[in-house]
Amino acid sequence: MGERKKIIIDTDPGIDDAMAIFVALNSPEVDVIGLTTIFGNVYTTLATRNALHLLEVAGRTDIPVAEGTHQTFMNEKKVRIADFVHGKDGLGNQYFPPPKGKPIEKSGPEFLVEQAKLYPGEITVVALGPLTNIALAVQLDPEFSKNVGQIVILGGAFAVNGNVNPASEANIFGDPEAADIVFTCGADIIAVGINVTHQVIMSADDKDKLASSNGKLAQYLCKILDVYYAYHLEAYEIQGVYLHDPATILAAFLPSLFTYTEGVARVQTSGITRGLTILYNNLKKFEEVTEWSNKPSIKVAVTVDAPAVLKLIMDRLMESN
Amino acid sequence: MGERKKIIIDTDPGIDDAMAIFVALNSPEVDVIGLTTIFGNVYTTLATRNALHLLEVAGRTDIPVAEGTHQTFMNEKKVRIADFVHGKDGLGNQYFPPPKGKPIEKSGPEFLVEQAKLYPGEITVVALGPLTNIALAVQLDPEFSKNVGQIVILGGAFAVNGNVNPASEANIFGDPEAADIVFTCGADIIAVGINVTHQVIMSADDKDKLASSNGKLAQYLCKILDVYYAYHLEAYEIQGVYLHDPATILAAFLPSLFTYTEGVARVQTSGITRGLTILYNNLKKFEEVTEWSNKPSIKVAVTVDAPAVLKLIMDRLMESN
Repeated sequence: MGERKKIIIDTDPGIDDAMAIFVALNSPEVDVIGLTTIFGNVYTTLATRNALHLLEVAGRTDIPVAEGTHQTFMNEKKVRIADFVHGKDGLGNQYFPPPKGKPIEKSGPEFLVEQAKLYPGEITVVALGPLTNIALAVQLDPEFSKNVGQIVILGGAFAVNGNVNPASEANIFGDPEAADIVFTCGADIIAVGINVTHQVIMSADDKDKLASSNGKLAQYLCKILDVYYAYHLEAYEIQGVYLHDPATILAAFLPSLFTYTEGVARVQTSGITRGLTILYNNLKKFEEVTEWSNKPSIKVAVTVDAPAVLKLIMDRLMESN
Repeated sequence: MGERKKIIIDTDPGIDDAMAIFVALNSPEVDVIGLTTIFGNVYTTLATRNALHLLEVAGRTDIPVAEGTHQTFMNEKKVRIADFVHGKDGLGNQYFPPPKGKPIEKSGPEFLVEQAKLYPGEITVVALGPLTNIALAVQLDPEFSKNVGQIVILGGAFAVNGNVNPASEANIFGDPEAADIVFTCGADIIAVGINVTHQVIMSADDKDKLASSNGKLAQYLCKILDVYYAYHLEAYEIQGVYLHDPATILAAFLPSLFTYTEGVARVQTSGITRGLTILYNNLKKFEEVTEWSNKPSIKVAVTVDAPAVLKLIMDRLMESN
């Protein structure tokens, strides 16, 4: 077996975070070397509890969990929590017993900085929540953006409406200042926005297929998925769920399932479009110097092989292990 | 002959404004009942001078010109002037002799209010520059948005990069506060953005065709077009020019050359994306009340029959009259 790709998942579990973590754990291409936690779908404290719980469900308590920050990069204590999407407990209102494990001493940003320094160019950070921990890592260590191998981000609504409001996608809206720092930090970055993840839909039939499999992770997921389906029916009038986080995990080690464009991406931090992502496509030479001038480029996903991504996610979740 | 559609053109001439005005004057479907002037391609004083000049070139000094405001809706005296696109004189650096005519006593906004009241539901205002005069008309008369038949706007970059910077299109950037007032004023509005007008390109060959025609307006235009071609070659690396204003004029009386979507459009007024236009497509029911909630919808052009639009513009400009 070849070298596995070392990944750290920055996560706010979250139903589709659980799916993404399980996909990663069942993927021979990757070695999950840690989870860092963040607010978003739930508060950070609950994200840490859920991360430890999910690793226990998967029998992978060897993987460290580092608790991330509880407030935004600008130190706002009030954070936006999407419990109406994932349930009050973040995992489909199942109120699982507390995990036995504990997070490590190091904070999320400290763990990110440490691991990137330990394995320069080798670590892929997959960011599934607001980008605060990553921005703090950039701030903590000026070498972080060089040391990290790649940052794969679920975030943004590129040239489409957002999912918090018409302008803004939830992860970027959760900490726009952090997102703008990360997008322009100079690291090798892939952003997978909802313009792409909205094409990867797990239907009600797919859920039945999951339920009929012998995989323990598939069985577990079927317990927590109802709340997520109910939300999509209400908000989008679809009989299915968007696979934001699991699709993004695949981009980290099977990037050819997507196509990309490159350009400078910036985040609006004020006004009615706070949290909006704007990618400059480099097609026009502007008369004036702009806020996009002389900034590093990132890759932004533009298309996805949705059937292949869905099949891979289903297959990996249904593995009996 | 049926009833001609009464239109008022709010304009900042401007090379493609000149084309649009000439297309309108040569179109049997419309009766141009006045021009109002605005800053943008040139300062308002020069816009007025150029508007009077263009009517003299066309032999239509019977059409009144009402001078619009010299500053933005928020009373900013510093306005952005795109003389690098249209020439220092706005008309291809030809420095034509001053016109003989004078603007009427009434201001642009006063003229708009007066005419909309005089012919309720019958006037189409075609806005080819920043939307300050229209916003002032809305402010001047609370009935204006009901009295006016339709407002057809060249403005916005819907789901594409802008032309001032990656976020913002020039006319909206010229006065974002005014644009947001107009978009949400409740009038019947069509917005034609650069996402659509960038598909209507007059090639270098088309210019040769114009030059070989007998039409006096075509002959005149060929004198002023070089600067506009040179700008497009430099900024976009294309051997042709975008027909923003003439395409938008056609939307006012031949709307079926375009397709439209409907939704609430808002304008960002602060930060790095000041001047950005965001249309809410109504597909998601958001959890929170948004800045798009309970606002009136407008029509936004999404596709254009570009060959048909180009042919119509060429035909009307080449008519010998």
